[in-house]
Amino acid sequence: MAHDILVVTEADLRGAVTLDLTAVDVVEKAFAALATGSVVMPPILSMAIPEANGEVDVKTAYIPGFDGFAIKVSPGFFDNPALGLPSLSGLMILFSARTGLVEALFLDNGYLTDIRTAAAGAVAARHMAPEEVTTAGVLGTGVQARLQIKAARLVRPFSRVLVWGRDPVKAADYATDLAADLGIEVRAVDDPAKLVAESQLVVTTTPAREPILSADWLHPGLHITAMGSDQGEKNEIDPRALVAADAYICDRLSQCEALGELRSAIAAGLWTGSMPAELGAVVSGEVVARKKPSDVTICDLTGTGAQDTAIATHARAVALASSIGTGISA
Amino acid sequence: MAHDILVVTEADLRGAVTLDLTAVDVVEKAFAALATGSVVMPPILSMAIPEANGEVDVKTAYIPGFDGFAIKVSPGFFDNPALGLPSLSGLMILFSARTGLVEALFLDNGYLTDIRTAAAGAVAARHMAPEEVTTAGVLGTGVQARLQIKAARLVRPFSRVLVWGRDPVKAADYATDLAADLGIEVRAVDDPAKLVAESQLVVTTTPAREPILSADWLHPGLHITAMGSDQGEKNEIDPRALVAADAYICDRLSQCEALGELRSAIAAGLWTGSMPAELGAVVSGEVVARKKPSDVTICDLTGTGAQDTAIATHARAVALASSIGTGISA
Repeated sequence: MAHDILVVTEADLRGAVTLDLTAVDVVEKAFAALATGSVVMPPILSMAIPEANGEVDVKTAYIPGFDGFAIKVSPGFFDNPALGLPSLSGLMILFSARTGLVEALFLDNGYLTDIRTAAAGAVAARHMAPEEVTTAGVLGTGVQARLQIKAARLVRPFSRVLVWGRDPVKAADYATDLAADLGIEVRAVDDPAKLVAESQLVVTTTPAREPILSADWLHPGLHITAMGSDQGEKNEIDPRALVAADAYICDRLSQCEALGELRSAIAAGLWTGSMPAELGAVVSGEVVARKKPSDVTICDLTGTGAQDTAIATHARAVALASSIGTGISA
Repeated sequence: MAHDILVVTEADLRGAVTLDLTAVDVVEKAFAALATGSVVMPPILSMAIPEANGEVDVKTAYIPGFDGFAIKVSPGFFDNPALGLPSLSGLMILFSARTGLVEALFLDNGYLTDIRTAAAGAVAARHMAPEEVTTAGVLGTGVQARLQIKAARLVRPFSRVLVWGRDPVKAADYATDLAADLGIEVRAVDDPAKLVAESQLVVTTTPAREPILSADWLHPGLHITAMGSDQGEKNEIDPRALVAADAYICDRLSQCEALGELRSAIAAGLWTGSMPAELGAVVSGEVVARKKPSDVTICDLTGTGAQDTAIATHARAVALASSIGTGISA
């Protein structure tokens, strides 16, 4: 029995699915559902292809209350740049959660992942950062360094951005680009300690394997979102900071223990208290992360299949509303 | 950097990708590669969606020597018939094994799985059945009962088929259909013992949970392909038959131990010898399954991701040669 499948390319998605409050809200809804425990999120399927210096990951999650569920396939082939191709590619497939039929294919090459990752940063900032943020700081200069700041500004309209990167040229380019893009002051700084001191909201977006943000730099009224660590060997935040903060929150506890900042704090023998709460519990109001303006809060984001299901559902709605994509009767 | 992705529907695939010797050969090549140990085949990703009486499985395998690798997504939503929809649907995605880029999307609703499953039966018959097969028997009357007999006849041109099913009406329909299709004698029988006695090649294709083929029925010069059991609770062949046969061969040992006929023989405490060889070792000549015409041989098929990669690679070649499908620049 033939039904229509919507096929949407990266170019069309970039034109239609933007980092806006609607995207943030749909990702927030996914986190709230994660906290109820009724989400089904199997472990990641991962396959290495050593001959091509490649790997492929498959993620999925079913969220009650969402019409569909996504399966995301993310190949990373690290010899591609020598062939003039990007290392990362892949697609998301949206299935009906009622019938299992394919509803949409998003040939996005990771674009929807970029959006849902940044949107999670906005959810963290909305529920954990102080009400007043005048300066936001970012450690890192890549795609997420840009998107995370844009996302955070949707919920905390700060007027100044400070950026630090290991490569000062990239930091300067970042400052030029973002200043033009946001129309506010964006300044590259040499000293990450100074960046943290002057910011109320800091996002770390690097693949660092040794901490780049010291616990000594924490100050009253600071919120940190750490989104760089998503593998067992990564670590951006001084493990002492997790203990020193008034609240440390995970996107998904089972992932942060293995892949996030929490892993390093446990390995260092520093995390000895009860297990931290998840972002979904903060979203739903079950847990209050920030109890007063002077609290120090940290949110650890490793990335979840629930976000993929949320953004794929959103992308389909946007694509239908804006009549993009190709319908295939199958 | 845009590249062309080929999208092919089930209807187009049914018209172009047929059960022929080319399909059998490509699946045989995948089994030979499986035996070398260099295939990467991760465990299946499986997710249940209890609210919709649904489940979804994701399989993949990388085979050195194949240009691409497939990821297969198989949803099964068992309330669909009440909605006028088939329970099974899904798609295969073919990726370049060199760059990870998506090359083709096969919206096949399980059709390519049907073909690669039947092709594996032909590989087993080619390398394990006696040279002379005049009568083939099949237990079961479903899609695979039909395809397995057609596949086996590609490599053993028998002139008579016997069929047995729990439902005599379905067995009679099978006989009428296959006789018309193959132009040979096809006869429904009431007694599976008689069917086995008169056949040199028997294929079991049922979801039985108790043996339907007794060890007492084995006779010199018999080959059995058991393809029904692919879950821990299924069992078609009397476990004593596995021990009594001159050769018992698995498609994939790790799967047959958990999902195939071997599981029942181990559970019954009957399988105490060394672990059986795999079909790939038989294909490559490393293991000789049938040493003489009078041997009794059994092949246990549970279905592998390697077959999916093989059939998806084949389907792309056929689609390009016959100019079917839609090219999408993505």
